[in-house]
Amino acid sequence: MTEQTTFGREDYRHFRPIQTRWMDNDVYGHVNNVNYYSYFDTAVNGYLIEEGVLDMHDGAVIGLVVETHCNYRQSLAFPEPVEAGLRVARVGSSSVRYEIGLFKEGHAEPAAQGHFVHVYVDRENRRPTPLPDDLRTVVNKLLVA
Amino acid sequence: MTEQTTFGREDYRHFRPIQTRWMDNDVYGHVNNVNYYSYFDTAVNGYLIEEGVLDMHDGAVIGLVVETHCNYRQSLAFPEPVEAGLRVARVGSSSVRYEIGLFKEGHAEPAAQGHFVHVYVDRENRRPTPLPDDLRTVVNKLLVA
Amino acid sequence: MTEQTTFGREDYRHFRPIQTRWMDNDVYGHVNNVNYYSYFDTAVNGYLIEEGVLDMHDGAVIGLVVETHCNYRQSLAFPEPVEAGLRVARVGSSSVRYEIGLFKEGHAEPAAQGHFVHVYVDRENRRPTPLPDDLRTVVNKLLVA
Amino acid sequence: MTEQTTFGREDYRHFRPIQTRWMDNDVYGHVNNVNYYSYFDTAVNGYLIEEGVLDMHDGAVIGLVVETHCNYRQSLAFPEPVEAGLRVARVGSSSVRYEIGLFKEGHAEPAAQGHFVHVYVDRENRRPTPLPDDLRTVVNKLLVA
Repeated sequence: MTEQTTFGREDYRHFRPIQTRWMDNDVYGHVNNVNYYSYFDTAVNGYLIEEGVLDMHDGAVIGLVVETHCNYRQSLAFPEPVEAGLRVARVGSSSVRYEIGLFKEGHAEPAAQGHFVHVYVDRENRRPTPLPDDLRTVVNKLLVA
Repeated sequence: MTEQTTFGREDYRHFRPIQTRWMDNDVYGHVNNVNYYSYFDTAVNGYLIEEGVLDMHDGAVIGLVVETHCNYRQSLAFPEPVEAGLRVARVGSSSVRYEIGLFKEGHAEPAAQGHFVHVYVDRENRRPTPLPDDLRTVVNKLLVA
Repeated sequence: MTEQTTFGREDYRHFRPIQTRWMDNDVYGHVNNVNYYSYFDTAVNGYLIEEGVLDMHDGAVIGLVVETHCNYRQSLAFPEPVEAGLRVARVGSSSVRYEIGLFKEGHAEPAAQGHFVHVYVDRENRRPTPLPDDLRTVVNKLLVA
Repeated sequence: MTEQTTFGREDYRHFRPIQTRWMDNDVYGHVNNVNYYSYFDTAVNGYLIEEGVLDMHDGAVIGLVVETHCNYRQSLAFPEPVEAGLRVARVGSSSVRYEIGLFKEGHAEPAAQGHFVHVYVDRENRRPTPLPDDLRTVVNKLLVA
């Protein structure tokens, strides 16, 4: 296991609510490890769509996921609501490293934290492309020093 | 295809918000047909848990699904929010037929409607058991004449 | 609940193996009702792709699901393998009703059976279109008298 | 992104087939990043159940996932079959680090590789417990020097 700094709520730049689902719980009665990544995916892409910089149907540039990671600290379970904190740790010429913390309501410490690296590519040829300016502006709003 | 009456919002007794997820969308850019059932499942069980009559971890009685059905009328797509309307069409000695309508925000006509039949069984031997009184009271609140 | 004829293996025209997944099991230790539909979806589309009549990326015609239904008779659970039986009950000008039975290994009676209605539409304008000849030929191979 | 050694097929100790599903593909036409983890989960737990050392219903000891990671190198897409290679990189007193490679049929290089750390806990109190002897024997069969 990788040693990791724990990030609290104050370390994130934007929060989004995540709704758990009945079938997220597995045989042990808690959200299955796989579903945490659907929360990451939904939080990051939801933010980008809301900010108007990701058009999944017609955009010339799409984000491909090249690396994901999660550390699980406390179990989550349907029907509890979850809050996803977002921050950007690095913006490269064609990639962005998003960091996500999942928090139980009212908790200061994360139930899970992880990251998610997008490489932005041309929709047609799927080759890396420089971040469009509007996307760069939006991800920079989440960038931590 | 079964001919069906269309139920509008006024035909439902309770509404719950459903959050779509990025991965709910399939290759055609809309929520895959399978995921509608996770919305049904989440709406029905979320209601029962909130009302205090379903304890998925320790309850003596659990609901097993014996029949589900859905008619799809309009496509849904992440990131749009969905509202699930709930009603109960029949309460038997050990079963309940829940009917669900999924609505886009501000739409009077459902994007999808379907049903979901629970048979309540003893957790240990999985044999049908009469509905506990508290559960019967709660589902009766959703019963349509 | 709808009264239903039970179809045995001999009533299906084609079989496909389905692999269950760890996270298919829900808190009660069996495959969640929602996942049965992912088996239906995978069996029908897998057959059509294998037969060369569905090109999900570039085909001019795509199948939209307008109705699905499932009756659950016996529980399934990861890691058991499942066999999906396929038959076609009706071929319309632009729609097909597929019927699916899910069988446990070595069982004559289905663990679940249901149906799935595809309406074929033009990929661009999403309006119903007559079944292409090659698709009609392939679904007719599964048609029961 | 973490720099990583690439492991080929010869670096894994056990292989398991994974079946992709229609709904695994997302709007970009390839398996969504989240689903890779359901393949990891299914491969590891499928192996342990088959070897008789994981009883998800009644075992006194269960495996909780505390860390997962994946690097994505080539896209996968339904309906292609996938092979999951398994190896164990570390066995602690109550934890195991599984490493998984996902391979396309006939490819020597992985489409994705990642890891998955299980901490084994007492089912009732969820506190870490020494690996049972039979489990230790089985995971040691996958241990790389």
